Amino acid sequence: KREDKLDIPNLAAEIRSGNRIALSRAITLVESSNSDHKEQAQKLLQELLSFTGNSIRIGITGVPGAGKSTFIESFGSMLCDMGKKVAVLAIDPSSSLSGGSILGDKTRMEKLSRTSNAFVRPSPSAGTLGGVHKKTRETMLLCEAAGFDVILIETVGVGQSETFVRGMVDFFLLLVLTGAGDELQGMKKGIMELADGIIVHKSDGDNVVRARRTVREYKQILHFLQPATPGWMSTSLAVSSVEKTGLKETWDMICKFEETIKASSYWNMRRSEQTKDWFHSMITDHLIESFYQASDRKSLIQSLEKSILHGEITVTQGVKKLFE
Amino acid sequence: KREDKLDIPNLAAEIRSGNRIALSRAITLVESSNSDHKEQAQKLLQELLSFTGNSIRIGITGVPGAGKSTFIESFGSMLCDMGKKVAVLAIDPSSSLSGGSILGDKTRMEKLSRTSNAFVRPSPSAGTLGGVHKKTRETMLLCEAAGFDVILIETVGVGQSETFVRGMVDFFLLLVLTGAGDELQGMKKGIMELADGIIVHKSDGDNVVRARRTVREYKQILHFLQPATPGWMSTSLAVSSVEKTGLKETWDMICKFEETIKASSYWNMRRSEQTKDWFHSMITDHLIESFYQASDRKSLIQSLEKSILHGEITVTQGVKKLFE
Repeated sequence: KREDKLDIPNLAAEIRSGNRIALSRAITLVESSNSDHKEQAQKLLQELLSFTGNSIRIGITGVPGAGKSTFIESFGSMLCDMGKKVAVLAIDPSSSLSGGSILGDKTRMEKLSRTSNAFVRPSPSAGTLGGVHKKTRETMLLCEAAGFDVILIETVGVGQSETFVRGMVDFFLLLVLTGAGDELQGMKKGIMELADGIIVHKSDGDNVVRARRTVREYKQILHFLQPATPGWMSTSLAVSSVEKTGLKETWDMICKFEETIKASSYWNMRRSEQTKDWFHSMITDHLIESFYQASDRKSLIQSLEKSILHGEITVTQGVKKLFE
Repeated sequence: KREDKLDIPNLAAEIRSGNRIALSRAITLVESSNSDHKEQAQKLLQELLSFTGNSIRIGITGVPGAGKSTFIESFGSMLCDMGKKVAVLAIDPSSSLSGGSILGDKTRMEKLSRTSNAFVRPSPSAGTLGGVHKKTRETMLLCEAAGFDVILIETVGVGQSETFVRGMVDFFLLLVLTGAGDELQGMKKGIMELADGIIVHKSDGDNVVRARRTVREYKQILHFLQPATPGWMSTSLAVSSVEKTGLKETWDMICKFEETIKASSYWNMRRSEQTKDWFHSMITDHLIESFYQASDRKSLIQSLEKSILHGEITVTQGVKKLFE
């Protein structure tokens, strides 16, 4: 019964003052599926809304094996050393059936987790349809209200996580390995066109020369593609998280991006569009979810699909039968 | 009152026998927004369903100025000379406000229109949300029942027409001009990754050498991208519709594609998936359309958007208010 009586204004003030326990508690509230918790979470967020939006939001994705967590550990630690407050979140739209969260593994980003300027949050357990990216968005707002300057959002798992993350960040970073030719074959369709920057990772030891060549190859390919952000020429950099090279250059690139895009009106425009898109995608999610959840509808849809594929009824007739 | 008494089985038989007037009439029925016509169209389609699916469905898109209609005129005429029956359809999801159909212009594809083996249909006038691609799909089925071997579906106008067309064809062809470097800058995001083949068009006169170089450049880029169709390595060809070069090679490429993909199980699998996707996207369209159409909802949504962007309420609260 204790949480039912949560003092929301007090919790908001504690978050604003930098109390980590209050922040963690608020995120748990946001992630809860309990209806009382949901309502309290929304009241809390409403209380904090005017203190959000002041961070730079960076999305990070990578090909399998690119070493995302190692990069985030090194890059995040460098930013903390520079005096920045860094929050690391993850988005994982994969279902709980498919294995769930990797970030739940507490041993990851061990050093960064212990840094006082950093806050590393495991990914929310995947649950209801369309719910995961909502939770990550709201967690991001809580972190901003808590005064974090840099929000790193990592894509975890398979599926559409890249598109979701692109839809909630200012800058989108793609991590790849050397050997663009072989590497790109396994890369998701359209992923390069979402990226504002491409990091050729593990540029260390014997790999440095190959990494530099790969950077040139990516720059060439990026030249052929539409920019992910109007007014910004996406570029590529070689980075070693082990030897700590290229990390400073990565941050410089992001700062130059922020300066360039803020000078145009696009920075605020994109954020407004992202919020509106979020609103409308939640409306659509709600419509679809409540439609497909209705009892007996699943079996009706399956039998209609069968009739359509067997050429017994047209698609239009199938849709009509569903809404009769 | 005459059309209310349409003899559907007779109309179906006339279409099957190759009667062009019957086919045109059926397409008009499919495109009509009158509810009696709609019902008759669905009965007719149901009657014809078992005679559909036997064509090769080819989508054609291009960068602005690439000369799509000239290509379709030359390519379609060659196929007709080879004894193929060719239907040319267009998809134009742009709203009627934005100018409407270009294919409505009757002077286009003049030669092909007069060829007895060809059937050129102007694009349906854009109307209701989500309706245009449905009409083109159903028109395609009518043409198949009428015995057409090759269906060419051209993208017209802006918007998502490429994605719609990719979702209803077997082979997707992209037309570009020489100078990949400059050209690609203006190309839509992800468009190359939808293409099974890229035609470098206007490869004639002084342009031949440049066209060949551009073909090589595209082949190189295609090598970096995921194939649009699993099991098919997308490739590039130089074509002149004026000098009639490369047209035969284009058809050979499509035939090789058909042979390769039919040998795997992917041909039928993709068609089934396309039909299922069509069914579910029509369900979603219906849900969204009827939701946003409800009276007063538009102004409520706009005022909620404003409150959200001003930071007065959270997105979740906005959605909740809508469904209260």
